[in-house]
Amino acid sequence: MEWTQQQINLRPRSRGFHIITDEVLAALPQLRDCSVGVLHLFIQHTSASLAINEDASPDVRSDLEGHFNILAPEHARHYRHTDEGPDDMPAHIKAVLIGSALTIPIANGGLLLGTWQGIYLCEHRNHGGTRKVVATVMGAMQ
Amino acid sequence: MEWTQQQINLRPRSRGFHIITDEVLAALPQLRDCSVGVLHLFIQHTSASLAINEDASPDVRSDLEGHFNILAPEHARHYRHTDEGPDDMPAHIKAVLIGSALTIPIANGGLLLGTWQGIYLCEHRNHGGTRKVVATVMGAMQ
Amino acid sequence: MEWTQQQINLRPRSRGFHIITDEVLAALPQLRDCSVGVLHLFIQHTSASLAINEDASPDVRSDLEGHFNILAPEHARHYRHTDEGPDDMPAHIKAVLIGSALTIPIANGGLLLGTWQGIYLCEHRNHGGTRKVVATVMGAMQ
Repeated sequence: MEWTQQQINLRPRSRGFHIITDEVLAALPQLRDCSVGVLHLFIQHTSASLAINEDASPDVRSDLEGHFNILAPEHARHYRHTDEGPDDMPAHIKAVLIGSALTIPIANGGLLLGTWQGIYLCEHRNHGGTRKVVATVMGAMQ
Repeated sequence: MEWTQQQINLRPRSRGFHIITDEVLAALPQLRDCSVGVLHLFIQHTSASLAINEDASPDVRSDLEGHFNILAPEHARHYRHTDEGPDDMPAHIKAVLIGSALTIPIANGGLLLGTWQGIYLCEHRNHGGTRKVVATVMGAMQ
Repeated sequence: MEWTQQQINLRPRSRGFHIITDEVLAALPQLRDCSVGVLHLFIQHTSASLAINEDASPDVRSDLEGHFNILAPEHARHYRHTDEGPDDMPAHIKAVLIGSALTIPIANGGLLLGTWQGIYLCEHRNHGGTRKVVATVMGAMQ
């Protein structure tokens, strides 16, 4: 039984939903030695989030961006937190709706994702910059 | 300290919110040997999700289904991902809103759910079929 | 490797989003002995939830309360679960949207929260009373 933990610096993305599965796996070579466990990912920001969804059709990601812009629109008249730009308060709402952490089962050195599942970075700011994710592998090592 | 992990195949449900607490517990007899830990459940699909909410009134579940159909309606004009039917893109949105994983504390061989809490399968497709859930018990065994 | 688990009784809050980081940390002195791990928090209620978001501007919390009241309004005509008051069914919807559990990485005896991140109790009832949270520290102890 071992725990490994590290920070992953995700390269900047434009506003929207982006697949980061390969970028995350490339940063975690020790995952190959884990026979059974759970990967914990935690984004250290309040205006971006992590999700799991379809990694095939790009339309799914653009429709998600379009729909979350309806659920949490810019320039809503009731917002008081507007100093940091019109994309800021919607970003906080989206981050609370989607969440800051993911947990994914590990078996035999790989993630037990479903056939169509990928890991998403949900970038809610227009210019979010590099995003920091803490990755903790918890489980039994081979 | 041990980790156990297995796949649970949930029987098909109709579209809506369904309590699966008993079906999950029946598949995890080893949970009775866990003195302290966490149960991790992960659904390997992008159009169904897992949640925890009230397990008493059936009206709560039907109101949830009704309300999520408002939050993520069929036939929204901005959807581009429409090839797999009108229930498909709303299902992806609901899955991102609700999430693919649950973590529930374990103590003395049982789940530490609150008095009114149950585990939900949230089936977002009209004909979702069998749903696969990976259950990982992490903790200290007696 | 050790697991510690305990119940934290959060003092009653008014309806809205509240920072509880200090109250949670004060209840978990053993966290200082954890060199690497994950803190798991689980709220044992179906009408309150836990989230992570900005802990600086109070306007973020009041805007979140305002916006979730739009996403899950009182007195929606389609609600059937109305016996426990107009704030009850919206509270269940918000709890499903936001979630019952948090997982936060631990390193060197502290939480690896981002610069602006705090732990929120999201109280969705007008008079929710004391809220019970189960805190499980999983990790390697020094």
